[in-house]
Amino acid sequence: MISTMKSTLSYLKKLELFKELDDHKDGQFFAVADQRVKNHLPQWISFSPNIFWLKHPEEDKNLEVFGNAVEFFLKQGICRSSTIYAIGGGATTDLAGFVAATIQRGVNWVAVPTTLLAMIDGSIGGKVAVNMPQGKNLVGAFHMPERVMICGDFLGTLSESEWVSGKGEVLKYAFLSREIHDLLLRKVPIEEIALACAQFKTEVVERDFHEKGERVFLNLGHTLGHAFEFTLKIPHGHAVAMGLRYLFKVMGNDDAFAEWEQLAKALQLPLEKLELGSYRNFDLKSFLDYLEQDKKKSGTSLRLVVVKSIGNCYVEEVAMKDFKAKICAHADFKNS
Amino acid sequence: MISTMKSTLSYLKKLELFKELDDHKDGQFFAVADQRVKNHLPQWISFSPNIFWLKHPEEDKNLEVFGNAVEFFLKQGICRSSTIYAIGGGATTDLAGFVAATIQRGVNWVAVPTTLLAMIDGSIGGKVAVNMPQGKNLVGAFHMPERVMICGDFLGTLSESEWVSGKGEVLKYAFLSREIHDLLLRKVPIEEIALACAQFKTEVVERDFHEKGERVFLNLGHTLGHAFEFTLKIPHGHAVAMGLRYLFKVMGNDDAFAEWEQLAKALQLPLEKLELGSYRNFDLKSFLDYLEQDKKKSGTSLRLVVVKSIGNCYVEEVAMKDFKAKICAHADFKNS
Repeated sequence: MISTMKSTLSYLKKLELFKELDDHKDGQFFAVADQRVKNHLPQWISFSPNIFWLKHPEEDKNLEVFGNAVEFFLKQGICRSSTIYAIGGGATTDLAGFVAATIQRGVNWVAVPTTLLAMIDGSIGGKVAVNMPQGKNLVGAFHMPERVMICGDFLGTLSESEWVSGKGEVLKYAFLSREIHDLLLRKVPIEEIALACAQFKTEVVERDFHEKGERVFLNLGHTLGHAFEFTLKIPHGHAVAMGLRYLFKVMGNDDAFAEWEQLAKALQLPLEKLELGSYRNFDLKSFLDYLEQDKKKSGTSLRLVVVKSIGNCYVEEVAMKDFKAKICAHADFKNS
Repeated sequence: MISTMKSTLSYLKKLELFKELDDHKDGQFFAVADQRVKNHLPQWISFSPNIFWLKHPEEDKNLEVFGNAVEFFLKQGICRSSTIYAIGGGATTDLAGFVAATIQRGVNWVAVPTTLLAMIDGSIGGKVAVNMPQGKNLVGAFHMPERVMICGDFLGTLSESEWVSGKGEVLKYAFLSREIHDLLLRKVPIEEIALACAQFKTEVVERDFHEKGERVFLNLGHTLGHAFEFTLKIPHGHAVAMGLRYLFKVMGNDDAFAEWEQLAKALQLPLEKLELGSYRNFDLKSFLDYLEQDKKKSGTSLRLVVVKSIGNCYVEEVAMKDFKAKICAHADFKNS
């Protein structure tokens, strides 16, 4: 199986999605799906024999469950021309995509993201992986889904923290794209914004699949974001919103911070939850250690994505020492 | 990490190989290696902390050991710019290559094949995988090694059955390449033949990485070969030699069979071991069942590689029913 660099993005209403799924009702329909959305899927899927259900996708995103899924599909008679559907949030699509990338050296897969975060980020771009005890996404592949089917009706199933996480990542896109920025301030429905973000990422990835160029801008806010995610144990997009806030703060980018505040309000993000002061358990040392480890992963120095103006970013090489000093000098970190 | 479609093939004497390895003595040298060749490697490797040793590579080529290897390398601090060396036979290079393909979504790897079969086949071409209870190589990836370093001195470590297995695969190349055919009949040293086979495969794979065209010819003899391997529990190349023999017999290709006999003799293959009559445990039903399953994997009908003349093969679509009938009509199968 050859993994193409292209993926088709479709926006579907619930009935349209059901119709698409129903086309496979009588054939062999293979899927990895989050049990929590079972009731929001066509009923026949509940009785379908070839679904690998995940009870707790975040916890299940590991090598053991990966092995179980591979074995399950082989037993169910999957073959090279089969397609695996991934129905759920980012953890589900990451795991399912890695299964699809490796089973018989690669079969097609289709992502049906059911969370805002997965719709605009996780399910798009073909980076698939599972977690290891040593860290997140440490074993995986690049394997593009054949299609990403976005259905806004799933947004009704989200918890408060899933909303915050999704919106945190939306916030990032508003700095990368003037169009998304403006949609956001115009307060158009979130489905419309989600689709714009998904389209934006799809196009960036199409032009730069292997992250040799502009794909790196998608990491805006993620250096600090990952460190917040790790030390505060908060959802990914929530951490990215904080990563953006403190990137602008620490780098003294006042214009970007003013934009950030305006956008976060437009998105109705809970601002107090995006401030370090709200977290009594914050451990500066483990935060800085995490950054150090992140630097090691990417080479000899820290490559930060920095915002010049809306839609205009660049990469700045920053010495770790200097960056750490800036962080430690900032009041919110100092008082933590 | 981007997997390129190119791989550099080098032929080295033992001292040259040692010198290349010694260059990494003081840095971080990551490797998956067959314990059985430990004494044939530079001594410092025995004490190196970053070697994942395999006791029984054929048995260890599974998802559990894969997971252990990934975790081992992460604990040892592997990073995206690291390289994993694979030192051993085909099972070792397959496992190590799959680890390299997936750890941090792909790091470089270098193959140091130590068996004849791995030198001319397994270590070349970037098809990496581990076995599943349901069959061989059912979970894997396409991930080219950066380099393949062939050192003929390892051939001194081979058992009789490893020799037969390697030579069986050499036999196949003699039908695909006039040059190899002639080298073989001229009885040049086996190291020279091995290098010619490795070069031949490297070039085919370079032109057709994803098996859209000529790479499929490398499967000559493998349809029956895999079925023999499965039912008789014999080494891969040994089964390929039998697969070729009975392909020519069953398809009534007398010219090719005459060549086969001449070449097998030139290679000093034990002819009696390549005849079905020597195997009292042969089970025709399970042999035919295996073929049926193989057909399912590849689509609706059986695509056989057929020899027209030396260096001139083509693919023939054969209805499974007809092929089975030909097999059952042949005396060796009938009397089994």
